Amino acid sequence: MALMTGEQYIESLRKLNTKVYMFGEKVDNWVDHPIIRPSINSVAMTYDLAQMPEYQDLMLADSNILPGKKVNRFTHLHQSTDDLIKKVKMQRLLGQKTASCFQRCVGMDAFNAVYSTTYEIDEAHGTDYHKRFIEFLKMVQENDYTVDGAMTDPKGDRGLAPHAQADPDLFLHIVEYREDGIVVRGAKAHQTGSINSHWHIIMPTIAMKEEDKDYAVAFAVPSDAEGLFMIYGRQSCDWRKMLDGNNSIDVGNKQFGGQEALVVFDDVFVPNEYVFMAGEYDFAGMLVERFAGYHRQSYGGCKTGVGDVLIGAAALAAEYNGAAKASHVKDKLIEMVHLNETMYSCGIACSCQGSQTKSGNYEIDYMLANVCKQNVTRFPYEITRLAEDIAGGLMVTMPAEIDFVSKTKVDTKAGMSIGEWTTKYFKGVNAVSTENRQRILRLIENMCLGTAAVGYRTESLHGAGSPQAQRIMISRQANMPAKISLAKIIAGIKE
Amino acid sequence: MALMTGEQYIESLRKLNTKVYMFGEKVDNWVDHPIIRPSINSVAMTYDLAQMPEYQDLMLADSNILPGKKVNRFTHLHQSTDDLIKKVKMQRLLGQKTASCFQRCVGMDAFNAVYSTTYEIDEAHGTDYHKRFIEFLKMVQENDYTVDGAMTDPKGDRGLAPHAQADPDLFLHIVEYREDGIVVRGAKAHQTGSINSHWHIIMPTIAMKEEDKDYAVAFAVPSDAEGLFMIYGRQSCDWRKMLDGNNSIDVGNKQFGGQEALVVFDDVFVPNEYVFMAGEYDFAGMLVERFAGYHRQSYGGCKTGVGDVLIGAAALAAEYNGAAKASHVKDKLIEMVHLNETMYSCGIACSCQGSQTKSGNYEIDYMLANVCKQNVTRFPYEITRLAEDIAGGLMVTMPAEIDFVSKTKVDTKAGMSIGEWTTKYFKGVNAVSTENRQRILRLIENMCLGTAAVGYRTESLHGAGSPQAQRIMISRQANMPAKISLAKIIAGIKE
Amino acid sequence: MALMTGEQYIESLRKLNTKVYMFGEKVDNWVDHPIIRPSINSVAMTYDLAQMPEYQDLMLADSNILPGKKVNRFTHLHQSTDDLIKKVKMQRLLGQKTASCFQRCVGMDAFNAVYSTTYEIDEAHGTDYHKRFIEFLKMVQENDYTVDGAMTDPKGDRGLAPHAQADPDLFLHIVEYREDGIVVRGAKAHQTGSINSHWHIIMPTIAMKEEDKDYAVAFAVPSDAEGLFMIYGRQSCDWRKMLDGNNSIDVGNKQFGGQEALVVFDDVFVPNEYVFMAGEYDFAGMLVERFAGYHRQSYGGCKTGVGDVLIGAAALAAEYNGAAKASHVKDKLIEMVHLNETMYSCGIACSCQGSQTKSGNYEIDYMLANVCKQNVTRFPYEITRLAEDIAGGLMVTMPAEIDFVSKTKVDTKAGMSIGEWTTKYFKGVNAVSTENRQRILRLIENMCLGTAAVGYRTESLHGAGSPQAQRIMISRQANMPAKISLAKIIAGIKE
Amino acid sequence: MALMTGEQYIESLRKLNTKVYMFGEKVDNWVDHPIIRPSINSVAMTYDLAQMPEYQDLMLADSNILPGKKVNRFTHLHQSTDDLIKKVKMQRLLGQKTASCFQRCVGMDAFNAVYSTTYEIDEAHGTDYHKRFIEFLKMVQENDYTVDGAMTDPKGDRGLAPHAQADPDLFLHIVEYREDGIVVRGAKAHQTGSINSHWHIIMPTIAMKEEDKDYAVAFAVPSDAEGLFMIYGRQSCDWRKMLDGNNSIDVGNKQFGGQEALVVFDDVFVPNEYVFMAGEYDFAGMLVERFAGYHRQSYGGCKTGVGDVLIGAAALAAEYNGAAKASHVKDKLIEMVHLNETMYSCGIACSCQGSQTKSGNYEIDYMLANVCKQNVTRFPYEITRLAEDIAGGLMVTMPAEIDFVSKTKVDTKAGMSIGEWTTKYFKGVNAVSTENRQRILRLIENMCLGTAAVGYRTESLHGAGSPQAQRIMISRQANMPAKISLAKIIAGIKE
Repeated sequence: MALMTGEQYIESLRKLNTKVYMFGEKVDNWVDHPIIRPSINSVAMTYDLAQMPEYQDLMLADSNILPGKKVNRFTHLHQSTDDLIKKVKMQRLLGQKTASCFQRCVGMDAFNAVYSTTYEIDEAHGTDYHKRFIEFLKMVQENDYTVDGAMTDPKGDRGLAPHAQADPDLFLHIVEYREDGIVVRGAKAHQTGSINSHWHIIMPTIAMKEEDKDYAVAFAVPSDAEGLFMIYGRQSCDWRKMLDGNNSIDVGNKQFGGQEALVVFDDVFVPNEYVFMAGEYDFAGMLVERFAGYHRQSYGGCKTGVGDVLIGAAALAAEYNGAAKASHVKDKLIEMVHLNETMYSCGIACSCQGSQTKSGNYEIDYMLANVCKQNVTRFPYEITRLAEDIAGGLMVTMPAEIDFVSKTKVDTKAGMSIGEWTTKYFKGVNAVSTENRQRILRLIENMCLGTAAVGYRTESLHGAGSPQAQRIMISRQANMPAKISLAKIIAGIKE
Repeated sequence: MALMTGEQYIESLRKLNTKVYMFGEKVDNWVDHPIIRPSINSVAMTYDLAQMPEYQDLMLADSNILPGKKVNRFTHLHQSTDDLIKKVKMQRLLGQKTASCFQRCVGMDAFNAVYSTTYEIDEAHGTDYHKRFIEFLKMVQENDYTVDGAMTDPKGDRGLAPHAQADPDLFLHIVEYREDGIVVRGAKAHQTGSINSHWHIIMPTIAMKEEDKDYAVAFAVPSDAEGLFMIYGRQSCDWRKMLDGNNSIDVGNKQFGGQEALVVFDDVFVPNEYVFMAGEYDFAGMLVERFAGYHRQSYGGCKTGVGDVLIGAAALAAEYNGAAKASHVKDKLIEMVHLNETMYSCGIACSCQGSQTKSGNYEIDYMLANVCKQNVTRFPYEITRLAEDIAGGLMVTMPAEIDFVSKTKVDTKAGMSIGEWTTKYFKGVNAVSTENRQRILRLIENMCLGTAAVGYRTESLHGAGSPQAQRIMISRQANMPAKISLAKIIAGIKE
Repeated sequence: MALMTGEQYIESLRKLNTKVYMFGEKVDNWVDHPIIRPSINSVAMTYDLAQMPEYQDLMLADSNILPGKKVNRFTHLHQSTDDLIKKVKMQRLLGQKTASCFQRCVGMDAFNAVYSTTYEIDEAHGTDYHKRFIEFLKMVQENDYTVDGAMTDPKGDRGLAPHAQADPDLFLHIVEYREDGIVVRGAKAHQTGSINSHWHIIMPTIAMKEEDKDYAVAFAVPSDAEGLFMIYGRQSCDWRKMLDGNNSIDVGNKQFGGQEALVVFDDVFVPNEYVFMAGEYDFAGMLVERFAGYHRQSYGGCKTGVGDVLIGAAALAAEYNGAAKASHVKDKLIEMVHLNETMYSCGIACSCQGSQTKSGNYEIDYMLANVCKQNVTRFPYEITRLAEDIAGGLMVTMPAEIDFVSKTKVDTKAGMSIGEWTTKYFKGVNAVSTENRQRILRLIENMCLGTAAVGYRTESLHGAGSPQAQRIMISRQANMPAKISLAKIIAGIKE
Repeated sequence: MALMTGEQYIESLRKLNTKVYMFGEKVDNWVDHPIIRPSINSVAMTYDLAQMPEYQDLMLADSNILPGKKVNRFTHLHQSTDDLIKKVKMQRLLGQKTASCFQRCVGMDAFNAVYSTTYEIDEAHGTDYHKRFIEFLKMVQENDYTVDGAMTDPKGDRGLAPHAQADPDLFLHIVEYREDGIVVRGAKAHQTGSINSHWHIIMPTIAMKEEDKDYAVAFAVPSDAEGLFMIYGRQSCDWRKMLDGNNSIDVGNKQFGGQEALVVFDDVFVPNEYVFMAGEYDFAGMLVERFAGYHRQSYGGCKTGVGDVLIGAAALAAEYNGAAKASHVKDKLIEMVHLNETMYSCGIACSCQGSQTKSGNYEIDYMLANVCKQNVTRFPYEITRLAEDIAGGLMVTMPAEIDFVSKTKVDTKAGMSIGEWTTKYFKGVNAVSTENRQRILRLIENMCLGTAAVGYRTESLHGAGSPQAQRIMISRQANMPAKISLAKIIAGIKE
């Protein structure tokens, strides 16, 4: 099969029987739902760019499991550090084109983590997960599928292990081992891009001990499997997408967006061919760490691309305000660029310093990938603060779009309409239309406070693991004894 | 007249003929409009607390112009540094009770700035503005009015002076000088609390030169004056207030909120008795600086009160998540407190170091007030980042409130409703209801990204002047030659 | 007796038999020792300024124990919040005049802490420590003595309590209880200003339990008591004071400096009249907390004074470099001022919010004093970084002073001396002598890296307790349950 | 010729007639001077490591101009991005082994910048500088020379161009054009590693216009050329190296150090074969930018190596203090590692994203190299602050080394010597000797305040250009129009 276009991808979703719930009801035509559609458009962009010759060096790759076939890089197993670097650049590109989370990374990161981990499980336990997984991935590549990589369980009480929770389902687990497969129950929370995926790969969310054996489970499942359904998460300013309609300026970014959902598994049967871990709790930690590693690398790409848009928007707002030449404005833009490129540097560095796994694909440098993500938990917050500073307060005090076009007369001497008044008084520099000023300020609002802020801020904090998770990994990777040795030599300390 | 209760205040608003436009239409019953009402409730709290004995030391003051009368401190002329300190404490209290901007400060700050500035204008120009103003303020105190202090003009091109704008109305100005008063045209943007005020005090927004003489104008005007109307500014997540209704958890803070509007003056006549500056451009800068000084002090009170609520919410979220004992969580809460109390310290310090003006009331220490506000442009951003960190990603991925109560069955084996599923999977520690967890996370969302974030973040940045405005004042107050002298003495440099 | 002049103070030191060791030897004429003398000069400034009418409002106070007598504020018991504020201003003044630690604060802070704590010990235990202390303090005030307040024990293994240390002397303790007094053994480390004090007040360093009863001891002792001696601590660049002589530019601040020493008690007898705590371990924590509270307030004064000098020096260096008009330089100076005034604000705020103790003197607000010091552990580091930035690298690459005056010819065509070459090539703007440029850069070096950096940086970090000590106190003062209540009310959570 | 050993390198310096002045006199045996020798040892380490098989992958490279020859990487022209990456790793290694500036980078960075720039000058002007330079570099590689790359002029008044200075020599310039060469006059300031280099490469320090033609000059010169001499710059705590002798603990890092000097050219003749630019002012900017670019990359290597030592030292100090298990200590160490690895990431990223110049060697990515250095102007300051925090105040209050060994008796009851007292009271955890604690604290002092702080802090700020220089380059590389375009597309702005 050929690579899909964005349009074909969207049509392919309509054929699925994916069950989506939102605002207390089942949503039948979720593909065209105004709140959901922008997130589908973001994923569609991963297909559209792959069709454009100027981007194919980044967007396509030579499959190692389907010899001779070019596949979308989002379905690719990294074959070199160069592949890892291109991954980051592809993500920055997508961030630039969507100013949003484009969601398809989780699948890519899951593929690469499951690929190498199953290899090592098989080696240790004599299982055949790796082969199963390769077969599954061939199908994904052949069909150019979007796959959600789902890791995060609801977790309930953070202080308790999976088996110790009051409700055993708060972590997803195997409830039945059958000859032909397993039955699983539980849920995955905060799932980015689950609804618009064709398939899901499910992974455990923490390292486990024997008591949690049944929770050590990884598998693939079609998004419309029986017993599987999704409940949509609401985002800041979501109603604007619903109500302000397709032509809204106030949405800020009307075409693209992210998406988060709770994915519930109510006793879903998974045939053996799609099971990649079932009880090998000693490998749960490895799978988590690898997926997290790849995904922390990802943030050095996607969020810098989103940052590029926000920096550009702030620069344009400064022009529209007549403030672009103020030295403090120029300096703030430099700072935004500096922070953005620092994150990018970390994304590139952990890729370039990657190495080959036993299974043959490439993994990132764990220290630098964790450092990358740790910076991503900080800098977008400062970048948004600076963007809000440059944009000016109007970004949050401007009337609604309809106030700019309303022909309702205001009963004063001038006899002007609401739209005429707002257009008059919200003008910036004379050469620029008030509408364009509205547009850029609403985009900044969207990225600092609205739907995109969910992706650019909170997701930067918690996606791929909360800040403390990275600090633990940094500590583990730091090789402190070696550093202490260096210091002892210089200080002349002989034990 | 006696001090009003909150309820009486709300009723008093109904009697006004204030003209409010929103979403392209005139809003007739704006007092009960679900988007506007929370901001009215916030102001009402300034009345209600003044009725409660335990708060009267902060909420009431002895009027210096109505001897023997206790007035609401929001209408008071500060008579001592102790008054200035109590002002800050009152603001912190209100912030704690509303978790919002309560809007009545701008009037108080305008009273004190206009009082002392008119005294000095009269001294220099032989005018009688000061007496006029005292009469006006007596009426305010007697009636316990809420008054909007309006300064910020739309400004158009930031690089041009008022008279040099393509549209001369982009700064408010006098278009006619009559025997009995003046006629003004223009607008004031970003007006916090204009709609729910009984009166407005209008002030110029920048220091001016002779070419801008007609723009150097200050006066009082009833909110429902002929030719005056308001266009409501929309805020992040405003639709939730509109649609999710009165009982909504998703609103986060259903009772209280802030408000911003464009206030338009289409040739409004102002009788002489309410005119406090009309062409004395040499005093425009003084009035701006004094109002800004008081208002920068204010932020050391109100925002720390709001911060108290956010810190408490984060601490509670940590408990509900089962993470309250993690050392990194405790440390983040300490950091939030530290930053919050640093802002408060600056608010207290600039008050305690205040001094008497020529007119007799007290003004703050300008250096420390500007330092205070400069910190407020930074710390709430870090506090919200830490709150989002502690809260966890669920804050932005949780389904809508209706999903938690929906009885719609989901078609899977268990036969449970949407509400049952969400309640099951969004449970934190077992002892706490999912609803309470929802409530606290939605409050944090509201303060970090939603309507309250507008007040807590962007308003902290731009209210009372953007960061660069404070830097200019800090530079001016720094007395660098004195510091250079100190350094020369120590370094042994003799000129 | 009258207040001493600086000169009289220095002479008074000569009469003591204080035993000082340094560089492996006993130093006989330590008053004139080039390394020690600058620290004596700093203390002398506390006497000299008290003689100058323009500073007496800050420097003098009305004694509450010697009615009618004006005493140096460094020996005063604070009688009001105004006294607390004046304390901070006096400290800022001294910082400005010495660009150093002037050491006399520890005594003042000890007086006030011991005064109120002994009152409460007596109340609880029926002892008469408070009366003893008043008599002691009368003598101090009458003689205008400098007194070291000594708290920090060597501590050994930080993980162990005093009695559990391998060497029991690592915390100072009572080794013998006699009828007429006690005998103590141990040491106090990092003692600022011990050598140049007439007396010492010794206090315990941590809260204690019954096992540490003998370590709960407070008393006064003359600096030259039998069995007491001091070992001088070396500071960065100390040799320059020794070798470059009295006229050295390279010292940076030739006249003033700080001082740290280990004070050893080898079985020192203390008569009962000078004993203020002996075994009342339940009050050790109170005494520590109170002394620390006062001393954390102090840092909001002294270090901002030192900061004023450094800011002035940086501004002057920018002028000498011809860079004063660069917008980034101006902005960095503003940032330095902003940070400095933020610390000052905290110092003022915790004073103004002080309250009366049971014993009648005033103590600071503990939350704000700890917040003050916490900021002091951060901001001087950023201020020095910015100073180094503005100064330029020459600050650390400039040849020695002697190279600027050396008449030794360099054997090249021009036949110029070393001094002529350095003077030629280290010129900045033409109007300023190379010597003045040297002077200001050496002063900055001194404050960023040299002897003064010890006081301005490391002492800011660890003096009055290391950062973590303040965080613990901030946590304790935060009243988190009250904040949680506020959040619950707003979020609509009913338990 | 073979690669030299460290010892051979040191001996080779003795054969030079380099003229060094210090403390007002000519220093004859400068190789063995206690202040200078540690900086020579640091360079010697670049030779010694190249002899060790385990480091040769990093330390050696295949020369592109001497086919078949392995050369020390410090003399190598980078032939790939892999070479650029290895450069950074080599620098980190050297930083780890010396905890100092090892000085040989400037030559390497100069080689690579001059190589590609001369190629482009020749192309534009028909000169033959490139060939001359290759011949020169062959000699360097064959002899394994250390070469100083000297760029920074004294600059005088920063607000004036070279030709406009009151003293024309404040920038180095050509004073005579001869048939066989040029005669130059001026100086280079802040020269790291000039004294211990065999040769110097001189480059202009800023972009120039036609008026500054004579200042656009680049050439090579032996360190002992006639008319060339050096005046040594003093560093914080330099006297300790001089006085505390070879066995001193107080020096902190007795074996290694950096070095800065003023290098004066009093009409030095340079034969044509060593002249690489003489008046081509249009290429001065390119040469500066390229050298600066390479050198900003370098800081991502060397300073992270030094940081490794400091982190190890802090961790060890925590152990010795008995505080290693405190959660705040562990968290501070993680933060230090995080910041250190962020700098490293930037160094790696700008290397990996390098590209080939017209001349064939590889240059770094300019945006990322400038971002790298910008971070280096900030993070070492925070790392040192954290190190000082963990170390404790003892680092700056400990007596001199001699106090720990002095046998002078102290006249008290115990009859112990000074050394016994200090050893007793400065013990940390019982298992560790006081001497080892001394050693580690003195090393930290050295790196935070002493000679190494000059290299780790101030040099990180100003070396390879002060912070503002990087901000200008970041601004230039930011491609803001492209970012604005991205924002316009998302916001729906059509011009």
